[in-house]
Amino acid sequence: MLIGILGGTGKEGAGLALRWAEAGHEVIIGSRDADRARVKAEALGAEAKVKLSGASNRDAATRAEIVVLTLPASGLAATLGDLKDACRDKVVISTVVPLTFGGGRLFTPPPQGSSAEEVQELLGAEARVVAAFHHIAAHELASADHAIDCDLLHCGGDAEAKKLVAELGRSMGLRAVDTGPLTNAGPLESITAVLATINRRYKLKGSGIKITGLPGG
Amino acid sequence: MLIGILGGTGKEGAGLALRWAEAGHEVIIGSRDADRARVKAEALGAEAKVKLSGASNRDAATRAEIVVLTLPASGLAATLGDLKDACRDKVVISTVVPLTFGGGRLFTPPPQGSSAEEVQELLGAEARVVAAFHHIAAHELASADHAIDCDLLHCGGDAEAKKLVAELGRSMGLRAVDTGPLTNAGPLESITAVLATINRRYKLKGSGIKITGLPGG
Repeated sequence: MLIGILGGTGKEGAGLALRWAEAGHEVIIGSRDADRARVKAEALGAEAKVKLSGASNRDAATRAEIVVLTLPASGLAATLGDLKDACRDKVVISTVVPLTFGGGRLFTPPPQGSSAEEVQELLGAEARVVAAFHHIAAHELASADHAIDCDLLHCGGDAEAKKLVAELGRSMGLRAVDTGPLTNAGPLESITAVLATINRRYKLKGSGIKITGLPGG
Repeated sequence: MLIGILGGTGKEGAGLALRWAEAGHEVIIGSRDADRARVKAEALGAEAKVKLSGASNRDAATRAEIVVLTLPASGLAATLGDLKDACRDKVVISTVVPLTFGGGRLFTPPPQGSSAEEVQELLGAEARVVAAFHHIAAHELASADHAIDCDLLHCGGDAEAKKLVAELGRSMGLRAVDTGPLTNAGPLESITAVLATINRRYKLKGSGIKITGLPGG
């Protein structure tokens, strides 16, 4: 599968890129600055002995079969405003979390209720938006020596798209849990606020969550 | 400890009452209708061979050292509007979750950001509000034959009050995790929307959550 990761030079995007490349997917790291994306892709690829490429966000979205967003919440409109055509009919995975650090309220969703719903509004109904991967810590993604102890909670309105997201999760060893329609994206995104607070309070780098009570543990 | 559970005739309140009575706490079940509370307390107590009493919500709040709210989110103002004096300087535990069933958006918090913050506004700054126990399923509370496989996530602005809440959790076998200030109550409450969706989708009665990555598992 050809995966384009927009805003993929950051820690979360780079971690996902590595895990997917290691699982045999073809990955393009996207950035506003295509050169920066290429440099990052080359450095990461050399380090992990996998093949990654870099491109502008626009080119990454255009070429990819699956578009993954690891963009800051505040920059969605600027980046996605003119990518509606590039994302049409594609599975678009929003990992975006609308958090505001600085001592006030940590979870600060947009008026749409969640960043994923803002993405859906910006890209239009033809983008197959799934919210997922918010809770998989960058630190855990980068540590390939142990399994990631966290469930992949995802939600969205397109059942086939969610199946594909679940497969992408399983390809890095994650159990996928379907948490319903995209109107549950706010709750999913807000769990990251809980985990960020726990990380800080308990001096952890990558707390995560597991759902209990499901068949098979 | 003398615990008053307002709206305690429902499943969640009754389950908490049973677990705390079994742990040796004195528990008053409160209801709008004092007679209903007394009947419920007697029936529950006889069944579980513990001593419970029933009272009006007002009397339960007035007599209790710790006030627990298992009220519907829509009824907070009506019940708490004139309990400011009864709750002054007391630890008030809000288990309230603002969910709206019926097919639209499931998590529907009040303008304050969360039901717990609405409680704080209604009771004033002198109530020591802690948000907690949202994720402990009534079905699990009622099943005393096995340990509850769920963490007790709590948040609030009063460190001593949170310690007491953690103790109340440990008295029913729960690990307590401090998730910061009361501005994180929205995220905590919204996790219940995720769990309710999972219960429905996977046909479960009591899914729960565990935080991973903490020392000791």
